[in-house]
Amino acid sequence: MQKIINFVEKNNDRYLNELSSLLAIPSVSSQKNHNDDTIKCAEWVANEMRSIGMNNVKIFQTPGHPVVYSEWLNAPGKPTILLYGHYDVQPVDPVNLWSSPPFESSIRNGDLYARGSADDKGQIFIHFKAVEAFMKNVGSLPINLKMLMEGEEEVGSTNLESFVKENKNLLKSDLVVISDSSMFAKGKPSICYGLRGLAYMEVEVTGPNKDLHSGTFGGAVHNPIQALSEMISSLHDKNGRVTIPGFYDEVLSLSKKERDAFKKLPHSDKKYAKDLGIGELYGEKGFSTLERVWARPTLECNGIWGGYIGEGAKTVLPSKATAKISMRLVPNQKSKKMEKLFENHFKKIAPKSVKIKVTAMHGGEAALTPMDSPGVKAAAVAIKKAFGKEPLFQREGGSIPIVVQFKQLLGLDTVLLGFGLPDENAHAPDEHLNLDNFFNGIKTVVHFYNELPNFWK
Amino acid sequence: MQKIINFVEKNNDRYLNELSSLLAIPSVSSQKNHNDDTIKCAEWVANEMRSIGMNNVKIFQTPGHPVVYSEWLNAPGKPTILLYGHYDVQPVDPVNLWSSPPFESSIRNGDLYARGSADDKGQIFIHFKAVEAFMKNVGSLPINLKMLMEGEEEVGSTNLESFVKENKNLLKSDLVVISDSSMFAKGKPSICYGLRGLAYMEVEVTGPNKDLHSGTFGGAVHNPIQALSEMISSLHDKNGRVTIPGFYDEVLSLSKKERDAFKKLPHSDKKYAKDLGIGELYGEKGFSTLERVWARPTLECNGIWGGYIGEGAKTVLPSKATAKISMRLVPNQKSKKMEKLFENHFKKIAPKSVKIKVTAMHGGEAALTPMDSPGVKAAAVAIKKAFGKEPLFQREGGSIPIVVQFKQLLGLDTVLLGFGLPDENAHAPDEHLNLDNFFNGIKTVVHFYNELPNFWK
Repeated sequence: MQKIINFVEKNNDRYLNELSSLLAIPSVSSQKNHNDDTIKCAEWVANEMRSIGMNNVKIFQTPGHPVVYSEWLNAPGKPTILLYGHYDVQPVDPVNLWSSPPFESSIRNGDLYARGSADDKGQIFIHFKAVEAFMKNVGSLPINLKMLMEGEEEVGSTNLESFVKENKNLLKSDLVVISDSSMFAKGKPSICYGLRGLAYMEVEVTGPNKDLHSGTFGGAVHNPIQALSEMISSLHDKNGRVTIPGFYDEVLSLSKKERDAFKKLPHSDKKYAKDLGIGELYGEKGFSTLERVWARPTLECNGIWGGYIGEGAKTVLPSKATAKISMRLVPNQKSKKMEKLFENHFKKIAPKSVKIKVTAMHGGEAALTPMDSPGVKAAAVAIKKAFGKEPLFQREGGSIPIVVQFKQLLGLDTVLLGFGLPDENAHAPDEHLNLDNFFNGIKTVVHFYNELPNFWK
Repeated sequence: MQKIINFVEKNNDRYLNELSSLLAIPSVSSQKNHNDDTIKCAEWVANEMRSIGMNNVKIFQTPGHPVVYSEWLNAPGKPTILLYGHYDVQPVDPVNLWSSPPFESSIRNGDLYARGSADDKGQIFIHFKAVEAFMKNVGSLPINLKMLMEGEEEVGSTNLESFVKENKNLLKSDLVVISDSSMFAKGKPSICYGLRGLAYMEVEVTGPNKDLHSGTFGGAVHNPIQALSEMISSLHDKNGRVTIPGFYDEVLSLSKKERDAFKKLPHSDKKYAKDLGIGELYGEKGFSTLERVWARPTLECNGIWGGYIGEGAKTVLPSKATAKISMRLVPNQKSKKMEKLFENHFKKIAPKSVKIKVTAMHGGEAALTPMDSPGVKAAAVAIKKAFGKEPLFQREGGSIPIVVQFKQLLGLDTVLLGFGLPDENAHAPDEHLNLDNFFNGIKTVVHFYNELPNFWK
């Protein structure tokens, strides 16, 4: 093992160069003008898999962006890991807020800046390099490995479920490993055992059948921006609770043990608010900040637009106003049911003066992973060896819907081994990845592959 | 006179061709990329003035877009009209909602479609052609005329006030005439005796200091879109009244006579709502629709934006949300005071979780014109002769701030002789001008110039 770890340490510069070429591909899955880039990125990933010694590398076409698969199955009697990741990235708007071009890697103060550095190209690359280190030094892996990399995670993994359904035999494994989440904090490596789900909606409010002059018509009709604002503002009560009837009905309550454990985590509301530059935090009364973002369902406006949004002043009373609104879900809420609850409520609260269109964009379920599984135990030992400290056990507010699908379709539990940090701007300008975590991440995965058979009965 | 009227009737086709070339110039004053077009348009107007026989044609530079001036002062002892108009136009967004390109004239069902056709190029062109008809047929005008055409009406006439101040002698006249408003309805020619004022604001709400991942942070911070929505929704109470303290304090109440006159106008709320495609009208309780849009102050959102507004779904919790909000004012409200009231209130209602920036964009005062002035009387006779029916007397919900400035700076009353229609999409896609009103407008102005000296003591 020391030989492999030494190899990793000696190759840091090369790793950064190679990762830069992956990050340079603008594989934005939600924007059609980047379709060619997404294909190019899938090919990059396939070539990398070949280069590090994976076998049976294959690019599967889907109705959307391709899935890249490969395997190494030469460790008979050892457990088989299904490694899932995604090579697509979020859009880069507003691009003027980036300090360096989003698709040119830039290292500043020990962090690597680029779209996809943390989410998720940097983290899948950690696994590529762990595999390579074994192959180059001992010629084999201590476990069997199947890699599954999709290009649609940022748009709801539209075609992955049917891919998994149609390839159950190909994907047959003993556990899933995903590195697409964050550690608790810098210097606080952690294992994530819970994710929130998602139901993402778009609502369109139409008032008059055309844009009007706000002088001639102002005072006669219900302005759709005002109507939408009134509807949005009614979605939370004064205690920060979501007002949609039934919104909290299926919520799995936090156990006293979990609440106590959360309280012991190194978190300060004051520092959290200060880091975000806000005067006070906001949210559902009766729950701590970590409880709210990890284990309570919430509702956020992700975008809003209507009327004149250009330079200067235009005295228009617009015909339409539109918003993107998403709900984060927790165990045991079901995204389809929550979409329906939202749609029914939003239509019900609409005044007669406007027409409403509600569209469910995409969704996924929340997930919890058993803490005593071999994968979680091996991960804890690997983190201890690579980072030199015990991992914390945390949840995560984001969503990885595929975790639920792997459980439902393949019967597999997932180990969430995240090497990002919560303030690395995963979906925002200046996304970055801490380089210490990147290099320790490669070592962690090396140890994890090595330790897993010891915990496997 | 009949000779002149006959000339007008014989030249309709030529008028449309010439107007098309004026409408083809995209003189959008609010957008910097159209600065050259605005200059080109000023030159077009100056050339036209020369061509119809105006003297002393001059383009005055300003810190913004130029002012075009000309005069014809060869009718000693007769009154002098100061004709004001503007050659700039509104932006064309959303351009995809236009049925024909906004800067290519298109005639459909007796209407001329193009940006500026009604507001205000088509209406200033009516005066050009009336002057030309006199010059070509009798070689002189029955009145003295000064023309003042600005290029910044759609951006608040920023530089016109100082131009008027600096050129009081040049602009010395007996009355102002403006054709930049609408008739009451098709077949209902009218004279407008009241305009609303304007105070146009932009508000920016900042929550966290960067865009956040809505999964990781959703539930911890006050989403600025939600905060802005809450603030906007609080600006009206359940009776449709604006909640800003002092908002109605200076409002000049409607007289019983005016309310009675408004009631007799041919207006149907049902038809009005049907034409706009809305289920029910909205506004301040206790006032009719015409009262609300003509004589009550109102508050409208003209634009809103924040977060991800592109294709697909992005799970962002944005840093900022912004809105353009304008107030329509009535006599005796003062725009500067209303801006201040708005700003103070908006900052006061902001929650501690966000930061607020309020910017006053531009404003202007409301206006009322005496009904027994010679100009209004001459206009009534002219309309009767050209349209064959008595004019209605109405107000208008829009703003022409310069009317107040002419009164304040030059001591002049304004006759508002509008030939547009309320549903001609002045600030929206598919702006158009009814051709009957256009041709009758030219005849009206011919009669008006001819009649004015008869009423002038």
